[in-house]
Amino acid sequence: MAPHKAPDSSRRSDRSRRAIYDAALALVGESGYRRTTIEGIAARAGVGKQTIYRWWPSKAAVLMEAFLDLAARAAEEAAPQTGGTGGQAGGADPQADGAEYGIPDTGDLAADLKLVLRATVDELNDPLMEAPTRALTAEGIVDAKLGAEFVEKLLDPQLALYVTRLRAAQEAGQLRPDADPRIALELLIAPLTHRWLLRTLPLTHAYADTIVDYALGGLAPRS
Amino acid sequence: MAPHKAPDSSRRSDRSRRAIYDAALALVGESGYRRTTIEGIAARAGVGKQTIYRWWPSKAAVLMEAFLDLAARAAEEAAPQTGGTGGQAGGADPQADGAEYGIPDTGDLAADLKLVLRATVDELNDPLMEAPTRALTAEGIVDAKLGAEFVEKLLDPQLALYVTRLRAAQEAGQLRPDADPRIALELLIAPLTHRWLLRTLPLTHAYADTIVDYALGGLAPRS
Repeated sequence: MAPHKAPDSSRRSDRSRRAIYDAALALVGESGYRRTTIEGIAARAGVGKQTIYRWWPSKAAVLMEAFLDLAARAAEEAAPQTGGTGGQAGGADPQADGAEYGIPDTGDLAADLKLVLRATVDELNDPLMEAPTRALTAEGIVDAKLGAEFVEKLLDPQLALYVTRLRAAQEAGQLRPDADPRIALELLIAPLTHRWLLRTLPLTHAYADTIVDYALGGLAPRS
Repeated sequence: MAPHKAPDSSRRSDRSRRAIYDAALALVGESGYRRTTIEGIAARAGVGKQTIYRWWPSKAAVLMEAFLDLAARAAEEAAPQTGGTGGQAGGADPQADGAEYGIPDTGDLAADLKLVLRATVDELNDPLMEAPTRALTAEGIVDAKLGAEFVEKLLDPQLALYVTRLRAAQEAGQLRPDADPRIALELLIAPLTHRWLLRTLPLTHAYADTIVDYALGGLAPRS
């Protein structure tokens, strides 16, 4: 974006970093988490494995950042209108990317949630995301340590965006005053994850809209 | 339960069957789905592998029935008060066990859902269930064919119980007339599955109760 500011070595680093992310995601999607190695990632990315060890302490760390980068790219593609609301300067640190896009606050909670959940549907249905996300989720399900790391670094920052938006809604009188936003968000995102992970039924925009309507309006009749 | 009706060979079969289930569940929990073999199950169960092949066409089929049996046992232990409402005769066919316990209908939808979701919490937190359920779910997430089989044979029959109960609630005026029970149930069960699979936060009875309250009452204020 600003090539004149970047010295040659930095541009080479950016290219290598992207090649390493792509190789890591492709390999984990093809072979699963356990069979993916630093050596394999280096060979596929066309870099020496020392390059990877210089930047990351472990395979899990490479994949974590590859994922943050992928999620940021997928979110930008899926919903450019939700991008960049975090307003943070920079972006050189891939750790920061995942938290840079927030949930919009137009004052209409239902519309904002539908927008972000439709974007989530698009991300989950993106073939680029599919295999690596499934591989990592599956591994986290059986490996508690890895699972905890991914929840802390990848999932919790996303959930925090919902907490922020739901708290704002609560202040605006659009969310029950006694609702805990951290629990409320689970009614919104868990059904999407459930459908996607278990492939029970198609994951569509219409489904995302229905979940928002049911969760906000409630399943019991309003009398 | 009725030993005089069972001939010796049938009792031996029952013992072998239970030993095979236990071996299959233990192995898949310890080593994962892929590394579990019919040979390994046979050796651990103390039966010949031909015994297994005579009763089941594949490893997946053994595990499926082992799971149905385990779920039935866990459900009985966790919530004996919900057991046997299906009122079906027999029970020799393990395929039938999973559908034999229904969701009670006392006329109070919230209370009935809390009862069954608390029992689900207990099942998911049962150490006997933990490892094999995680191993199979993880494998189904990356193996679409296996995943589809488990959804069809294990999950869908359970979801059908919710559809039945929610439809009854709809007829009794306790569920919005425009709500689709098949989607509504996802607001109830997906949050529990999400917490359990991803280990985001503790899965407790209080959580199950809150999910029922939020899902039925809705997150938006009732004015």
